[in-house]
Amino acid sequence: MTGEGIRLDEIVARLGGSLLGDGAVRIWGVGTLAGAGEGQISFLSNPKYRSQLASTRAAAVIVPPAMQDGTERPRIVAANSYTYYARVAQLLYPARQPKTPVHPSVVLGQDVQLGEGVVIHAGCVIGDGASIGDGSVLHPNVTVYAGCRIGKRALIHAGAVIGADGFGFAKDGEAWLKIPQVGRVIIGDDVEIGANTTIDRGAIEDTVIGDGVKLDNQIQVGHNVVIGDHAAMAGCVGIAGSARIGRRCTVGGGAIILGHLELGDDVHVSSGTLVAKSLKQPGQYTGAFPVERHEGWLKNAAHLRHLSKLADRVHELEKKLSELEKKS
Amino acid sequence: MTGEGIRLDEIVARLGGSLLGDGAVRIWGVGTLAGAGEGQISFLSNPKYRSQLASTRAAAVIVPPAMQDGTERPRIVAANSYTYYARVAQLLYPARQPKTPVHPSVVLGQDVQLGEGVVIHAGCVIGDGASIGDGSVLHPNVTVYAGCRIGKRALIHAGAVIGADGFGFAKDGEAWLKIPQVGRVIIGDDVEIGANTTIDRGAIEDTVIGDGVKLDNQIQVGHNVVIGDHAAMAGCVGIAGSARIGRRCTVGGGAIILGHLELGDDVHVSSGTLVAKSLKQPGQYTGAFPVERHEGWLKNAAHLRHLSKLADRVHELEKKLSELEKKS
Amino acid sequence: MTGEGIRLDEIVARLGGSLLGDGAVRIWGVGTLAGAGEGQISFLSNPKYRSQLASTRAAAVIVPPAMQDGTERPRIVAANSYTYYARVAQLLYPARQPKTPVHPSVVLGQDVQLGEGVVIHAGCVIGDGASIGDGSVLHPNVTVYAGCRIGKRALIHAGAVIGADGFGFAKDGEAWLKIPQVGRVIIGDDVEIGANTTIDRGAIEDTVIGDGVKLDNQIQVGHNVVIGDHAAMAGCVGIAGSARIGRRCTVGGGAIILGHLELGDDVHVSSGTLVAKSLKQPGQYTGAFPVERHEGWLKNAAHLRHLSKLADRVHELEKKLSELEKKS
Repeated sequence: MTGEGIRLDEIVARLGGSLLGDGAVRIWGVGTLAGAGEGQISFLSNPKYRSQLASTRAAAVIVPPAMQDGTERPRIVAANSYTYYARVAQLLYPARQPKTPVHPSVVLGQDVQLGEGVVIHAGCVIGDGASIGDGSVLHPNVTVYAGCRIGKRALIHAGAVIGADGFGFAKDGEAWLKIPQVGRVIIGDDVEIGANTTIDRGAIEDTVIGDGVKLDNQIQVGHNVVIGDHAAMAGCVGIAGSARIGRRCTVGGGAIILGHLELGDDVHVSSGTLVAKSLKQPGQYTGAFPVERHEGWLKNAAHLRHLSKLADRVHELEKKLSELEKKS
Repeated sequence: MTGEGIRLDEIVARLGGSLLGDGAVRIWGVGTLAGAGEGQISFLSNPKYRSQLASTRAAAVIVPPAMQDGTERPRIVAANSYTYYARVAQLLYPARQPKTPVHPSVVLGQDVQLGEGVVIHAGCVIGDGASIGDGSVLHPNVTVYAGCRIGKRALIHAGAVIGADGFGFAKDGEAWLKIPQVGRVIIGDDVEIGANTTIDRGAIEDTVIGDGVKLDNQIQVGHNVVIGDHAAMAGCVGIAGSARIGRRCTVGGGAIILGHLELGDDVHVSSGTLVAKSLKQPGQYTGAFPVERHEGWLKNAAHLRHLSKLADRVHELEKKLSELEKKS
Repeated sequence: MTGEGIRLDEIVARLGGSLLGDGAVRIWGVGTLAGAGEGQISFLSNPKYRSQLASTRAAAVIVPPAMQDGTERPRIVAANSYTYYARVAQLLYPARQPKTPVHPSVVLGQDVQLGEGVVIHAGCVIGDGASIGDGSVLHPNVTVYAGCRIGKRALIHAGAVIGADGFGFAKDGEAWLKIPQVGRVIIGDDVEIGANTTIDRGAIEDTVIGDGVKLDNQIQVGHNVVIGDHAAMAGCVGIAGSARIGRRCTVGGGAIILGHLELGDDVHVSSGTLVAKSLKQPGQYTGAFPVERHEGWLKNAAHLRHLSKLADRVHELEKKLSELEKKS
């Protein structure tokens, strides 16, 4: 938070929107509608929380036009109150610039290229010939293997591993023969990569992550995967080798996408779904066993193992009934 | 293991229970019933392994009263033989105290607070203003981001990441706008966190892990999750943002809990289950496709995609049959 | 890539196979059939890509006998073109030997044993009494806990954690009592371990990984698991404690295998499958909800919760129909 805070009218001057109430109010930080107090700005985006708007003690609130009368507190009216909130928060909490942008403990290989304003925190290891674009930030203990390229303004969280070998082996008798993984990982601009996420280098050609892609924590991206611009994936997702993910796709937490498949643009995969076939048309796709009390699940799961037979029995019933109907 | 071992009667003097057989036997370590030999103590807790009790060569055995006659070896009789075993093992294998409690390679930010007896192994990075309570141990290469608070007697395994940014973005056209993540991670006392587990900082308010919580490896805890005291989760679990997990809940390996849900106290989620709705009543909940031979699965899964139609056909049959019955 | 490349006839002299076309062609690297150009060798293994063989611009191609006439380019004919390719790639891309095989930032505990030619990259931490066999390579930021043994020619990728405590607790009132984990991890020869994969030490006896086992990224192996020789597992797999996995088993991405189960030799588990019972016979096993459009899934999943009742209704119909048939 900045030392003196920012006046509400100053925020509107910088970010637009219209101001209702006292523009001289100073804002130091953000808070939730329920938790915010003096010096804190909050926002309402989801109408579900409308009742909290009336009772909020926030110093100011960002609201969409439809809810601008829901409080008498000083407020900024903005068409998209959530993106407006994001911009205010970015203003109030600028990224901290460490005293030494590349921490002395960082290990840089030969011929590493670092852009302007790159920040690399302690414990990172950057392999030979890797490059990191302007304004990118690597949090502690990130490993970037040799030859990988990271674009501008990347934000890579602790423990992420970029460019480890893909999982490539040829069966040789009962043993596995290593296929050298000679491709790279190429990451576009404005990409965020979560903590302990791993992105493997390509087997021959490169693994490619498009511009604006956002990957949460503990995601595994296999070799030669191509992820289109502005795709976003939640935690614990696994993408097997050579899958192609379209632009603006979203993948819910814990979903698994098998190898060599193609997801078209604007495909959305629900959490916990195993995608075992290509999905070329836009839309939401799901496959997950509904949770229920264990006893109920036991019964239903037992029948699931005989579903094919149950369908045969229904077919048999239909035939017999049809014969009976003819007779009667 | 201690140099001279501990006499069996000394163990009973310290930990209680009743002794049958030679109390002068010296114990240096632990072993399984099948594998233990001279100087090793074993235990029987699960009646399934009762037959191993008769043939064990362990120097001594910890047994519940009901099985105290299952062997003639020196033995300690304790109501709960498993917790008794845990205490004996803690006695025999005290945590090693490294010569330098905070390894010289550790990177500490500004204003970090470390309690009494904190041990931090090599390669850890602790952000500005973080605090770690008395007696906590951080294994190698752990990252704690700025401002996070870890309670007393924590045990955090290698590669864990505490306080990385939550996955928060606002859709802005086709791109994603970063929501600064300004909350912290607050961890109670007596918490164990597994290797490469990640716990994200809160978006506005904090992510909170209660006292006595045990998290296995490779777990992902999203921003603003609240986990109640003494909950325990097995490996590869994912908890999405703002989920609230009750006290004493357990979550099996690989389960996924969606965001903004609530699990009441004493809810137990089976392995591999996707929890897509709140579960407020105590009990065991499950949702998982039963494994079977691939050919059988293929048939059943094909019918699953037509289950809704199958149900319609059964309904139709019921109607027709009822009409036929009326006629006949 | 070597400075001067290798002549095609030199490759055949070293690796066998038969040469068709100009043996004087020099090869510097590998490429895909579609992407390779001057100086690059490609291969055809999957007949699906046969059409690319006719149009490839690769300097040379490795083909199986059945496809040796699919191009007029210089080519090597080999019974198994994929393993042949693996060996050519190993020739062209020998592992880089760093100037200092054990990077100065590496932290070695007391009594660590390192074999001949071991390479340990920056940021690794090796605990007291651990041993690493000849020719093994540890990429950056790997942690090996005290006492663990790694065989010869291991390749361990960044961020992997070998030997953290298994997840062992005894219920003590509402709290959990720590069971000291006093076993080790014992890893055979020729094992590859992926980035951020974790293998826990045994509770009493050891966790054992056989020779030639290949583990992809982000896999969790619980305490006392035993994995047979030449098993291979894809990313994000979780193996719970004390499971025994047979020789040559394969496990698809994201599969979960519960504790204390046994998979026989040559069992193959499909991606995304939860294995909740022992599978002793060889073969492919699957359990996963098929993905479909969300609306269709909603309908089918709703009926799944009543599958047991649906089966009862079918049974009832069969009874009634049989009675009607008797009457008519």
